[in-house]
Amino acid sequence: MEKSKRYQEGKDIIKKYEDPSGAPAYSITFDSLMDLDPELENYIVEFAFGDIYSREGLCDEKKTLITISSLVTQGLEPQLKLHVNIGLTIGLTPTEIVDAIIHLLPYTGFPRVLNALKVAKEVFVERNLKVRD
Amino acid sequence: MEKSKRYQEGKDIIKKYEDPSGAPAYSITFDSLMDLDPELENYIVEFAFGDIYSREGLCDEKKTLITISSLVTQGLEPQLKLHVNIGLTIGLTPTEIVDAIIHLLPYTGFPRVLNALKVAKEVFVERNLKVRD
Amino acid sequence: MEKSKRYQEGKDIIKKYEDPSGAPAYSITFDSLMDLDPELENYIVEFAFGDIYSREGLCDEKKTLITISSLVTQGLEPQLKLHVNIGLTIGLTPTEIVDAIIHLLPYTGFPRVLNALKVAKEVFVERNLKVRD
Amino acid sequence: MEKSKRYQEGKDIIKKYEDPSGAPAYSITFDSLMDLDPELENYIVEFAFGDIYSREGLCDEKKTLITISSLVTQGLEPQLKLHVNIGLTIGLTPTEIVDAIIHLLPYTGFPRVLNALKVAKEVFVERNLKVRD
Amino acid sequence: MEKSKRYQEGKDIIKKYEDPSGAPAYSITFDSLMDLDPELENYIVEFAFGDIYSREGLCDEKKTLITISSLVTQGLEPQLKLHVNIGLTIGLTPTEIVDAIIHLLPYTGFPRVLNALKVAKEVFVERNLKVRD
Amino acid sequence: MEKSKRYQEGKDIIKKYEDPSGAPAYSITFDSLMDLDPELENYIVEFAFGDIYSREGLCDEKKTLITISSLVTQGLEPQLKLHVNIGLTIGLTPTEIVDAIIHLLPYTGFPRVLNALKVAKEVFVERNLKVRD
Repeated sequence: MEKSKRYQEGKDIIKKYEDPSGAPAYSITFDSLMDLDPELENYIVEFAFGDIYSREGLCDEKKTLITISSLVTQGLEPQLKLHVNIGLTIGLTPTEIVDAIIHLLPYTGFPRVLNALKVAKEVFVERNLKVRD
Repeated sequence: MEKSKRYQEGKDIIKKYEDPSGAPAYSITFDSLMDLDPELENYIVEFAFGDIYSREGLCDEKKTLITISSLVTQGLEPQLKLHVNIGLTIGLTPTEIVDAIIHLLPYTGFPRVLNALKVAKEVFVERNLKVRD
Repeated sequence: MEKSKRYQEGKDIIKKYEDPSGAPAYSITFDSLMDLDPELENYIVEFAFGDIYSREGLCDEKKTLITISSLVTQGLEPQLKLHVNIGLTIGLTPTEIVDAIIHLLPYTGFPRVLNALKVAKEVFVERNLKVRD
Repeated sequence: MEKSKRYQEGKDIIKKYEDPSGAPAYSITFDSLMDLDPELENYIVEFAFGDIYSREGLCDEKKTLITISSLVTQGLEPQLKLHVNIGLTIGLTPTEIVDAIIHLLPYTGFPRVLNALKVAKEVFVERNLKVRD
Repeated sequence: MEKSKRYQEGKDIIKKYEDPSGAPAYSITFDSLMDLDPELENYIVEFAFGDIYSREGLCDEKKTLITISSLVTQGLEPQLKLHVNIGLTIGLTPTEIVDAIIHLLPYTGFPRVLNALKVAKEVFVERNLKVRD
Repeated sequence: MEKSKRYQEGKDIIKKYEDPSGAPAYSITFDSLMDLDPELENYIVEFAFGDIYSREGLCDEKKTLITISSLVTQGLEPQLKLHVNIGLTIGLTPTEIVDAIIHLLPYTGFPRVLNALKVAKEVFVERNLKVRD
């Protein structure tokens, strides 16, 4: 079946979020699930990326920080790993990502923040990035 | 008792977040609770504002969007109302705040987003602000 | 702008979920929020109803019970009120809705269940329905 | 139908938790819901109170603080109000309840704690209790 | 000690939920925890199964879908694995389970749904089941 | 930089919570994260321990039970493991910890409680402790 215009827009955004050196974007991380339902990939690509991420008004950095904040708050570690990767790919520094997670201390308490920093550090190590000099 | 340097820093930040026209900042919203414990106000002013909000690295806009994202995700409406107010005071437009909340649709689902937009709209109406022309 | 095929499908489902005697469906409950963003109504109608609720495979009763379970679990009372109404309109009895909420006792504990039953009872009273004879 | 031994045990505990001056215990707070299901009251009285609260090993004060901690963490305000009342009736002081809620700051963040303190203060005011001299 | 009538009813339901080919039911999955407390198994068997699952009014399929919805919403993966197994044993097809999880997209967002589908797929693979032809 | 008085107080409390036989306290468990930010360790030691745990009014046992209750409620397993260890070090028995977790059944449901008991049992096994004779 021919893909929709929203699907193409979503795919373009996903491509922008993929690290040239190989850290994977959304649809790829959960690739093995897509055979569970013929529409599932469309929902992700068309709605999450084609409809929502394609919106104008907020820059990529702000969008990613908003996403990371929600994922830290919910303790959603597989998705947090993905969006820390996306954050680095679109230009956030490791320090900015750490700052964003630490900013949540008064709103989520320490455990969520420390568990999220552990995930972020794993990504930094995988990508050979230093947080501070 | 003499107040700490962190307390002064926290107070300065709270003052910056207060709307000149009167929309209240954190310590004031929960003012009536402060007689419950002699240290409670210090924790808020010194830790949340003096330690965390005073950090350099992220601009006020990003800090506020991260805060709003966590509050929307948790459905914490009294605090959301406060931080939508702070967001407007430090320079976010109503449209940017709406965009930030809508960006959470794929991460929290519709109910959290719609309930948060209801709170945001109440603030916009109270401050006589239009979202779109 | 012309509306999409998904929008029409979504609208048809919403119409089916509206109580002829007047209990409101989704888009109407949050009607006053739709001027906050030009796309928000489309996301609800096209994605939530046009894409998801229009799926074949589960009957309306099962879909509604799944929705109610998630809303009870999250304590999302405004949306719970709406979907209890939808449940009654598509043919669930008050007793089935009560049974579904009580079934969650081992998974959410008593407070979420009791708070949800309070919402359900309000709907039953508004619609002049008896739960048991 | 004759009531079970567990029901009697549960009822005895509920009676102990009721304030002689009138602040209500669990089954009474949600009394109006009990006609929704013929077993619901039994579940509360037999399981929550007859099975769980009747356990030996922890004193009433510790049980109530554990309950309050979970309710604060989940933001369950109607139940929090009830269990702050129970705490006062079984001998916790207002200051101990405030201390318990404030102790959660590092684990839940400020919003949950402040919203819970607001509920606790309402109870203290209703019962004409001072927190501190 | 002689076991109660509720215990026998609970045990009968658990037996019905056990896969003849060996996928485990509730008490067995957490079997190693039962020596932590002499009453714990009774609470599970008597209350969760003997009181709640034994209720008439909702069919096994609806009960299981309601359970699965709450577990997906909370991200409770060990229990989700168990109840996906129970769902298959009592007659739900893999496709119906996938449909139920996907139905939650508008209420929990994508991460909870994708993480749940990963768990469901693991169960399908363990039981050599295909989702779609 | 010279450390604050609050830092010293926090360190003293952490030392008290460390098991002489080697089970680790907070700052050590997350030690590898401290190079992500120069202030992170201070926030933990000064605020969580120096400000909050150093408060008078509640005994160590009650503080730890309140902490454990919140962690069980949120399903925060790495931190739960740490605070079960702290509980044992400050004098709670394994049975009291099990009792506290089981007490949460009516407030969180079975899954959170069983997953927490699994963590607690791991700690008991690591420390060669029996729960019951």
